[in-house]
Amino acid sequence: MIIMKTDATEEDIQRVVKEIEHSGLRADVSRGEYMTVIGPVGDERLLPFDRLATLPGVKEANRVESPYKLISREYARFFGEPGAHRTVVIGDVRLGNGEPVIIAGPCAVESRAQLMRIAEEVKQAGAHILRGGIFKPRSSVHSFQGIGATGSEEAEEALYWLREAGNAYDMPVVTEIRGESMVDLVAKYVDIMHIGARNMYDQDLLVAVARQRKPVLLKRHFGASIEELLSFSEYVAAEGNKDIILCERGIVPMGKGKSFTRYTLDLAAIPVIHNETYLPVILDPSHGTGRRDLILPMSCAAVAAGADGLMIEAHYDPSEALVDGPQMVTPDELKVIIDTCRQLRGIMAKKN
Amino acid sequence: MIIMKTDATEEDIQRVVKEIEHSGLRADVSRGEYMTVIGPVGDERLLPFDRLATLPGVKEANRVESPYKLISREYARFFGEPGAHRTVVIGDVRLGNGEPVIIAGPCAVESRAQLMRIAEEVKQAGAHILRGGIFKPRSSVHSFQGIGATGSEEAEEALYWLREAGNAYDMPVVTEIRGESMVDLVAKYVDIMHIGARNMYDQDLLVAVARQRKPVLLKRHFGASIEELLSFSEYVAAEGNKDIILCERGIVPMGKGKSFTRYTLDLAAIPVIHNETYLPVILDPSHGTGRRDLILPMSCAAVAAGADGLMIEAHYDPSEALVDGPQMVTPDELKVIIDTCRQLRGIMAKKN
Amino acid sequence: MIIMKTDATEEDIQRVVKEIEHSGLRADVSRGEYMTVIGPVGDERLLPFDRLATLPGVKEANRVESPYKLISREYARFFGEPGAHRTVVIGDVRLGNGEPVIIAGPCAVESRAQLMRIAEEVKQAGAHILRGGIFKPRSSVHSFQGIGATGSEEAEEALYWLREAGNAYDMPVVTEIRGESMVDLVAKYVDIMHIGARNMYDQDLLVAVARQRKPVLLKRHFGASIEELLSFSEYVAAEGNKDIILCERGIVPMGKGKSFTRYTLDLAAIPVIHNETYLPVILDPSHGTGRRDLILPMSCAAVAAGADGLMIEAHYDPSEALVDGPQMVTPDELKVIIDTCRQLRGIMAKKN
Amino acid sequence: MIIMKTDATEEDIQRVVKEIEHSGLRADVSRGEYMTVIGPVGDERLLPFDRLATLPGVKEANRVESPYKLISREYARFFGEPGAHRTVVIGDVRLGNGEPVIIAGPCAVESRAQLMRIAEEVKQAGAHILRGGIFKPRSSVHSFQGIGATGSEEAEEALYWLREAGNAYDMPVVTEIRGESMVDLVAKYVDIMHIGARNMYDQDLLVAVARQRKPVLLKRHFGASIEELLSFSEYVAAEGNKDIILCERGIVPMGKGKSFTRYTLDLAAIPVIHNETYLPVILDPSHGTGRRDLILPMSCAAVAAGADGLMIEAHYDPSEALVDGPQMVTPDELKVIIDTCRQLRGIMAKKN
Repeated sequence: MIIMKTDATEEDIQRVVKEIEHSGLRADVSRGEYMTVIGPVGDERLLPFDRLATLPGVKEANRVESPYKLISREYARFFGEPGAHRTVVIGDVRLGNGEPVIIAGPCAVESRAQLMRIAEEVKQAGAHILRGGIFKPRSSVHSFQGIGATGSEEAEEALYWLREAGNAYDMPVVTEIRGESMVDLVAKYVDIMHIGARNMYDQDLLVAVARQRKPVLLKRHFGASIEELLSFSEYVAAEGNKDIILCERGIVPMGKGKSFTRYTLDLAAIPVIHNETYLPVILDPSHGTGRRDLILPMSCAAVAAGADGLMIEAHYDPSEALVDGPQMVTPDELKVIIDTCRQLRGIMAKKN
Repeated sequence: MIIMKTDATEEDIQRVVKEIEHSGLRADVSRGEYMTVIGPVGDERLLPFDRLATLPGVKEANRVESPYKLISREYARFFGEPGAHRTVVIGDVRLGNGEPVIIAGPCAVESRAQLMRIAEEVKQAGAHILRGGIFKPRSSVHSFQGIGATGSEEAEEALYWLREAGNAYDMPVVTEIRGESMVDLVAKYVDIMHIGARNMYDQDLLVAVARQRKPVLLKRHFGASIEELLSFSEYVAAEGNKDIILCERGIVPMGKGKSFTRYTLDLAAIPVIHNETYLPVILDPSHGTGRRDLILPMSCAAVAAGADGLMIEAHYDPSEALVDGPQMVTPDELKVIIDTCRQLRGIMAKKN
Repeated sequence: MIIMKTDATEEDIQRVVKEIEHSGLRADVSRGEYMTVIGPVGDERLLPFDRLATLPGVKEANRVESPYKLISREYARFFGEPGAHRTVVIGDVRLGNGEPVIIAGPCAVESRAQLMRIAEEVKQAGAHILRGGIFKPRSSVHSFQGIGATGSEEAEEALYWLREAGNAYDMPVVTEIRGESMVDLVAKYVDIMHIGARNMYDQDLLVAVARQRKPVLLKRHFGASIEELLSFSEYVAAEGNKDIILCERGIVPMGKGKSFTRYTLDLAAIPVIHNETYLPVILDPSHGTGRRDLILPMSCAAVAAGADGLMIEAHYDPSEALVDGPQMVTPDELKVIIDTCRQLRGIMAKKN
Repeated sequence: MIIMKTDATEEDIQRVVKEIEHSGLRADVSRGEYMTVIGPVGDERLLPFDRLATLPGVKEANRVESPYKLISREYARFFGEPGAHRTVVIGDVRLGNGEPVIIAGPCAVESRAQLMRIAEEVKQAGAHILRGGIFKPRSSVHSFQGIGATGSEEAEEALYWLREAGNAYDMPVVTEIRGESMVDLVAKYVDIMHIGARNMYDQDLLVAVARQRKPVLLKRHFGASIEELLSFSEYVAAEGNKDIILCERGIVPMGKGKSFTRYTLDLAAIPVIHNETYLPVILDPSHGTGRRDLILPMSCAAVAAGADGLMIEAHYDPSEALVDGPQMVTPDELKVIIDTCRQLRGIMAKKN
């Protein structure tokens, strides 16, 4: 991490960048209000820190031993994120360090009509961002893979509906991307690029998505530690894209016998991530529990633990949904969840 | 499960009990306000349900295929727990289905003076019940095993201090029991018998403790599923002791790399247990996280998820504690936690 | 699963395929020595099995409820895999149901000279197939990502060396593919397409690789169950590519405290996979243990459990390796492993 | 760890012991052929090592930072275990560092006749030690708890049968102990005291059993790391009892979906334990897999990995067994397993 003096010139900055590139690494340049900080991407053991420290305009040059440096609180401190919390701006929505932001919509987009009706109803319930799955990652090749799996024409039509619904009800939109070949197409239509839990370890996909320069929503894999989630987020940050929203959605249940939930939600991940990084973190209680009756208590718990938002699957008629019906809430239930969470946040905000 | 008619006589009840015992099982007789329900303990396949159903005073005789029947919501419904939630009464404290009950105190009792001072301070902070470890289960024989490990005389002295401190500050007291040989001694001094996570699978200890007919606080093992916790609770209930307080304290962290918390708290266990049983459930954020800075957010999250109480380690000077200093809060911090949790509970109570 | 009569005509087969496609599914046609079996790919609930059963040339039409049908032993039985074990043929090497096949080479290709020397030495030690990593999946963006990560020109040069080394020492070659964009390039140079543990869940990559119609080596993710490994293999089989080699390489260690191995090898997966499918299965003791001293005992254990092969990292000077030095064996050690395994296999073969 | 000079007198030794006890610790005195080594039990930070090093007869006084010191290879080296492998002698049977020792018998003792017949048949098949469960630890209070659970009279009768069967067929006998209250009774009848997986963390039981001064068979808990198994073994060693046989029997399966085995056998634990300690280690493939068809491959794999023995459940008619029928082998199958393992051991022994 190279911290430049407040009066460092552009030339000074470029000199440092060149020096880093000369050693075979890349350089992440973050310009804050008061100063600029440069994060080397690659093996820092190859860098001549002694030499870097003596270059004009350089205040400090420190080696950082961590797989996540560019997303760390330390890094943020220098380039001026207020309170080392980043607010990700998506259209009119500001996610991070304020009211919990609600992302809602169907698990899978099934038709234009279905999507439009759900969009209208979740908006009325208080949601801020519209979600809808078009490419569904599935454990079985024999399961429904999403309306977008049939071909890129069908995918584009569904993406167009999503955009339409977002525009009609004034909500930014988000959908999951499963493979590199669809990245360009999806980026044309959505406001947030969502990488699902199964793809968290897919570093080539992370890089391709990061390069679209849109906010990235990255979910924790169900077998991953918090450290791994942060390490893989760094692949996005290393492309210069710091608009990363992390999402806890549960790890594989432990122990013998029946599991009462699909996954085990690790809510302590929320304050831990806030402590380690400047990134906002949200909860997906729908996939995390797989149970409609647990969406309210887990949403409330997450907000009490400091979550910056929630991603909740909703449907006007859960029993009709092609995928994941048992975990969807109705718009009425969603409204109760949103209202309760807002009150809880009010109490928590006063404490801090 | 045999449900008796409302006008069944004591003779009718005893006839059913005898029939069950005749088949080699035991019978748990639970007398509710309106009716009596009899739960067979043992392999129900050996019972002649057809015959039981025709006995005088019997309304219904159903076979239940579950490792936990006597603690299930179904069982409670018949013997009249209001709303199928049990309130465990400990002196003046009512734990279950109301304000969150706070159990606080030092991890390990170190001296009479230390305990008295902490008791006074946690009482002032708003705690209801005093905890203090005398026999410490430890992974290493080379670690401090608690003041009670040196011999039964030292153990009794420490138990006496605990009783004294509880009396002095008007709080019931609880301590952990690690082995069968200490059960009688401990029962003389405490109000709640606590079985720790490491001993959850120790069925002989569970039975011995249950027979003391005092409330039992049973913690989930860090490798156990919720189903296992409930199955082992049934060992207590099968001794006729239904005053069981379950406690979530985290499971072993998953995944590669550094763990930011000692354990992974499974907060969904709280609503799940409320759904499956009539028993109250509390959270131990101190052992569950091992980090003082996470006690507040996790306590709040647990209460938002419906927890009936919290068990929190507190010390006037955490840096001085012989065991687990990094996870202890000061009495001042404890007060903030208790106040915040009470406000959150107020909001949640209005929703239900 | 539609089993055709032995005298079914091509027209009969095509009629079944059309019927399946008409319902929105795809059809996998497997022609055995004696009969043809057709496996529908997709949601079988949409298929009119009653109608299919009455079509000319159809012997049986059964619905199979499993996420892996096309790789199952049942499927193999009909199209005639001898003993329901598949032998994957790679050049002169036959992998499956015979002598254990040894895949060896460096973790990462570092230079032409390094690769040539290792190829020569592992060949002399008795290895059959040459491995060498060109794109390294890494948990940290700041770690060495393989010689192929710098650009496609460097990648192609390294792939060319691998091909050269394979040709020079008469061994088929294998390398790992990390992202869709490299699939075509890699397929030009290697004999086996290897998908690593981190990418096991990446269904789009699996499909892209399967379509190259070369043998696919698929490793189990370190958080995946055996069932998930098999379900994701089915994505390859559903593209008509049944030349799949499964590889056990360990799951994340469980429990508190120090891990003595990088992963926990699940050797029972070997007989379990042989029982469930007709596919060969090998072990990677190098990544599975991360310890050179455990390669011999774990290799021997795997062969005793029925493994069809081993993938072992070897280097003439492990201390010099850029990646994973502590888990590499020398060619001399490799020779001892191969010789011992061969003897063990001899004993096991006599038992069966 | 205090290593005495070869010419240290008994007085010198006692002086060191007193010094250790003076600091509030206990002392484990191990007298080897050539020298004596003294291991402090307790918190070594309280010991004055500088002072200890200067006492007469003391060669070296080193602080060891490990939860398992008395069972470590280092400790063994000094008191003269040949090759730092301990052979546990049980009657005529020598377990450790030689032919694999086979412990076989029914899961649960059901009657004298059943036990006698199985004893005869497993002896003929080649077993060395007879097992039979009298107190069965069970997850459900409603399951059969073993013939000894009804009362101590029934327990004693069954223990008497076990002794009789052992005597009749010239095999030492072993049974599992579940609670402290039965320790004295069981010790009167058996040759090896077995502590099951569920009780591994029960330190008070470990201490009570260790004090019987008979060999202790300790199984790894299904949620425990290898380090925890070793740390809890140290509770036995700290009582001066080093005749400890460790047993791997599997950890809880990981990942989503169906488990094909009851537990995941961690065979690398075998060479790891041999590397860390001087204790013998065996495998229980019966509970570890829960599947009769996997007993042979997993037994062979364990022996190839260096196991000192196997504990296998056998029954003349598995379908008749009250507990765990699906995992029992017949005596004929047992014979094949024993013969194959002996041949594998022969090959492995030549390598070392």
